Amino acid sequence: MSDLPGIVITGISGRMGQMLAKTISASGKAQVVGAVERSGHDWVGQDLGAAMGGAETGVIVTDDPLEAFKNAQAVIDFTAPAATLEFAKFAAQARAVHVIGTTGFEPGQIAALEPASRHSVQIRAGNMSLGVNLLTKLAKTVAQALDADWDIEVVEAHHNRKVDAPSGTALMLGQAAADGRGISLEGNTESGRHGITGTRQPGAIGFSAIRGGDIVGEHDVIFAAAGERIVLRHIATDRVIFARGALKAALWGLDQKPGQYDMIDVLGL
Amino acid sequence: MSDLPGIVITGISGRMGQMLAKTISASGKAQVVGAVERSGHDWVGQDLGAAMGGAETGVIVTDDPLEAFKNAQAVIDFTAPAATLEFAKFAAQARAVHVIGTTGFEPGQIAALEPASRHSVQIRAGNMSLGVNLLTKLAKTVAQALDADWDIEVVEAHHNRKVDAPSGTALMLGQAAADGRGISLEGNTESGRHGITGTRQPGAIGFSAIRGGDIVGEHDVIFAAAGERIVLRHIATDRVIFARGALKAALWGLDQKPGQYDMIDVLGL
Amino acid sequence: MSDLPGIVITGISGRMGQMLAKTISASGKAQVVGAVERSGHDWVGQDLGAAMGGAETGVIVTDDPLEAFKNAQAVIDFTAPAATLEFAKFAAQARAVHVIGTTGFEPGQIAALEPASRHSVQIRAGNMSLGVNLLTKLAKTVAQALDADWDIEVVEAHHNRKVDAPSGTALMLGQAAADGRGISLEGNTESGRHGITGTRQPGAIGFSAIRGGDIVGEHDVIFAAAGERIVLRHIATDRVIFARGALKAALWGLDQKPGQYDMIDVLGL
Amino acid sequence: MSDLPGIVITGISGRMGQMLAKTISASGKAQVVGAVERSGHDWVGQDLGAAMGGAETGVIVTDDPLEAFKNAQAVIDFTAPAATLEFAKFAAQARAVHVIGTTGFEPGQIAALEPASRHSVQIRAGNMSLGVNLLTKLAKTVAQALDADWDIEVVEAHHNRKVDAPSGTALMLGQAAADGRGISLEGNTESGRHGITGTRQPGAIGFSAIRGGDIVGEHDVIFAAAGERIVLRHIATDRVIFARGALKAALWGLDQKPGQYDMIDVLGL
Repeated sequence: MSDLPGIVITGISGRMGQMLAKTISASGKAQVVGAVERSGHDWVGQDLGAAMGGAETGVIVTDDPLEAFKNAQAVIDFTAPAATLEFAKFAAQARAVHVIGTTGFEPGQIAALEPASRHSVQIRAGNMSLGVNLLTKLAKTVAQALDADWDIEVVEAHHNRKVDAPSGTALMLGQAAADGRGISLEGNTESGRHGITGTRQPGAIGFSAIRGGDIVGEHDVIFAAAGERIVLRHIATDRVIFARGALKAALWGLDQKPGQYDMIDVLGL
Repeated sequence: MSDLPGIVITGISGRMGQMLAKTISASGKAQVVGAVERSGHDWVGQDLGAAMGGAETGVIVTDDPLEAFKNAQAVIDFTAPAATLEFAKFAAQARAVHVIGTTGFEPGQIAALEPASRHSVQIRAGNMSLGVNLLTKLAKTVAQALDADWDIEVVEAHHNRKVDAPSGTALMLGQAAADGRGISLEGNTESGRHGITGTRQPGAIGFSAIRGGDIVGEHDVIFAAAGERIVLRHIATDRVIFARGALKAALWGLDQKPGQYDMIDVLGL
Repeated sequence: MSDLPGIVITGISGRMGQMLAKTISASGKAQVVGAVERSGHDWVGQDLGAAMGGAETGVIVTDDPLEAFKNAQAVIDFTAPAATLEFAKFAAQARAVHVIGTTGFEPGQIAALEPASRHSVQIRAGNMSLGVNLLTKLAKTVAQALDADWDIEVVEAHHNRKVDAPSGTALMLGQAAADGRGISLEGNTESGRHGITGTRQPGAIGFSAIRGGDIVGEHDVIFAAAGERIVLRHIATDRVIFARGALKAALWGLDQKPGQYDMIDVLGL
Repeated sequence: MSDLPGIVITGISGRMGQMLAKTISASGKAQVVGAVERSGHDWVGQDLGAAMGGAETGVIVTDDPLEAFKNAQAVIDFTAPAATLEFAKFAAQARAVHVIGTTGFEPGQIAALEPASRHSVQIRAGNMSLGVNLLTKLAKTVAQALDADWDIEVVEAHHNRKVDAPSGTALMLGQAAADGRGISLEGNTESGRHGITGTRQPGAIGFSAIRGGDIVGEHDVIFAAAGERIVLRHIATDRVIFARGALKAALWGLDQKPGQYDMIDVLGL
């Protein structure tokens, strides 16, 4: 094994788990030293490389997370809330950085993550892409700098199998803009315009959702005034960016004190 | 007076009438030889140039359209349906080209325009911009060439005072795409997505409406398949394009036989 | 074997060959019945599925193209000019549709393809994407419809490893626009603006090249007049579209008479 | 006269001077209390409203700047370097905010502005648009946050009469990105790509210039990595935004201590 920082991946057999394994191996900045699946999964006990259909790597997939975490500097975890709560405790015991890409937490579950962060670095984000997190920060900054003469619109485009609108990321961007402007998003949303809408409500934040083909995810935050416009745009063309963001977070976390962080912290903004 | 073709403008005191006067004068391709307002309007009897706040032109604003039309080769008319029906008769008597930018006709009124077109060239369009009409033609062509694996989305952006969505031009573009694909627009529209929408309906034509600032009008027709997209985009930045399109139509009409035409004919497509 | 049309892939071990195999198998519209590599390649004699690292398919990779072609309705060929010239003769003998995505032909080699097309359907294109070929057709149509008051600009974006500018596809689009306008591209090109350029040459076709990240290929053809713009845009996000275009061409070719065709014919424009 | 802050406009007869007069009058946030032209100009001594072709306003155009400045809280000045140096001294004497949109200063002239700023608020920017200044700030922030895996490209579009490329604003944006990344712009520029360029130089900042129609000014700063892109875009559609930015600066300046400021300060970033 090399001297590169060692990372454990949870939920290794999933699409995201496998993408993480490939991304970390290809990065030259870290190495996979452990891979976790739930007890009973047929990958448990197999060599990770072989299970993924490639050459052997010497890493055996395990269902004992604590043991795996003890040998690692960081854990990357895109699983489910209940599992992540367990992993948080083990990460705290192992003093390993815990990068959490899991989504769907209840408020109570989020609160339950906190105790572990007294002993370990915990980095959590609903979207691990560097670009989207940076855009969120920018949306807030711009909304803060400009007055209500600038109409704010969030436009997103996704593939034709997406079932909800606007996207969670669009809402996150809208929330950031609302925060920057010092208004509530709830009382100032115009979404799904159709028919006789009347003129645009001053100060509103508008949302539009485009659906087509296999678009991975595109988000525009538009600030439109008389005579000029600013557009903050993010285009995702490959889901691998979420794995890359998680790796960056893990490496950044190695030098931090225990506590709770998000991607804005990782970006140093 | 020069040898340039002579044009009469109806509704001369309105924003569009004045823009037409300036556009024609500046074009070097035609001249304003008459200007019509309704009886009782205080411009009637005044010199057109002076009424517009500039130098005298020798053209006196009149409330007698027939007399004005008789001295002209063409009439450009952005007024209201009832007035336009009257002007159509006078244009027929004067054998003048009648360019109709008026909107809001009832079906019966459209039918009532036809008799006049047996004696005069009648060119009518809901949007006189060359670009939008060309885009409409392209949208139909592309929809015809591509199968239903290509999702069609129409996205439009307008200023914050617009009261309806989608725009009339967006619907015209959607209709063209539906025609090209051989489906009805009505039964295949997804507009105003918000909330749990379910996956995109195969074959649907989607609409989104962005509102902000003083955007004159922007329209995208997106064809999105797996791995590639075609976008047909029109951007209007100045309402003068509608005046310019009307002038082009008038000049084109000089060489045509009596009948009913639209901007697709003018463009020679 | 099913009743689906049978296709042979040449150059099967290359990136494009393998992508074709996957695309055809997944399409449900055709089947791979043969796979050709050059003599001596270690895939020859192996089962195609196994050679590609998956399950066996019953198709054995061969170095005898004529024998393979005789059992197929169509051949898809992204190889090199010299090989393609040989394959054209075999396709003619086998009366198989020959789809040619090979590039880099000398003029003499193109001429040498013609005799085979008297006996077989030959479909050749430098870019097999439906979208790009459609855009080329549209660029010509629009350039034909609009006068020289509309400035034409071609803007392309590609990944950071591309070594030439503008892209071949950008030049193809520019050529189509020049053809539509009835001018030569050579004498009317503005490319690589930098420094004191002077005002834009009336009637010129401008080119700009953006380079960054892993952009697969994006092309804009912009028509800009006073007050309005039309933009024809193609966005490629996955190289699989070239395989899909080739498959579509092959299926279309099954119903055609012998002769030479291109993707514009396939699109029915 | 109302209680609104009083502003003097220098160079009142020019396009920018007149636009400022209209913008201030329409704003409801300030009033024009003085208008300056050079001695001998035929507007001097006339009523400002009449000189501009409208109703009288009671403000008489003067060639005595000091006298005018003494009655005002702020001066807005889009003239020429030599005149602006004089106006700076008068503004200092009058303790009036001095908003400087003048461009083309030599370094020595910029230094000569400093003494006056000890007694008056001096706000100077090469581009008074809020949007462009904000974008400049954002470009620096993003370049700072992202590593050199993100290729930076600046793409600008302007009307067909522009004689140089890239635009001054594009260079300003590129400079901001270079500053953020901690590199020199000079040694890291790729502009005017054409022909065999080789692969993109790692870390370079690329520039492209689109020219067509009457485009007022559009700027994109693109950050492109593998799998994702961030785009910061500014679109100007009306030159009035420069007048509006200057007014905002003047109002902001009323509450500041003497010193030198720029639009980034005004935006509070």
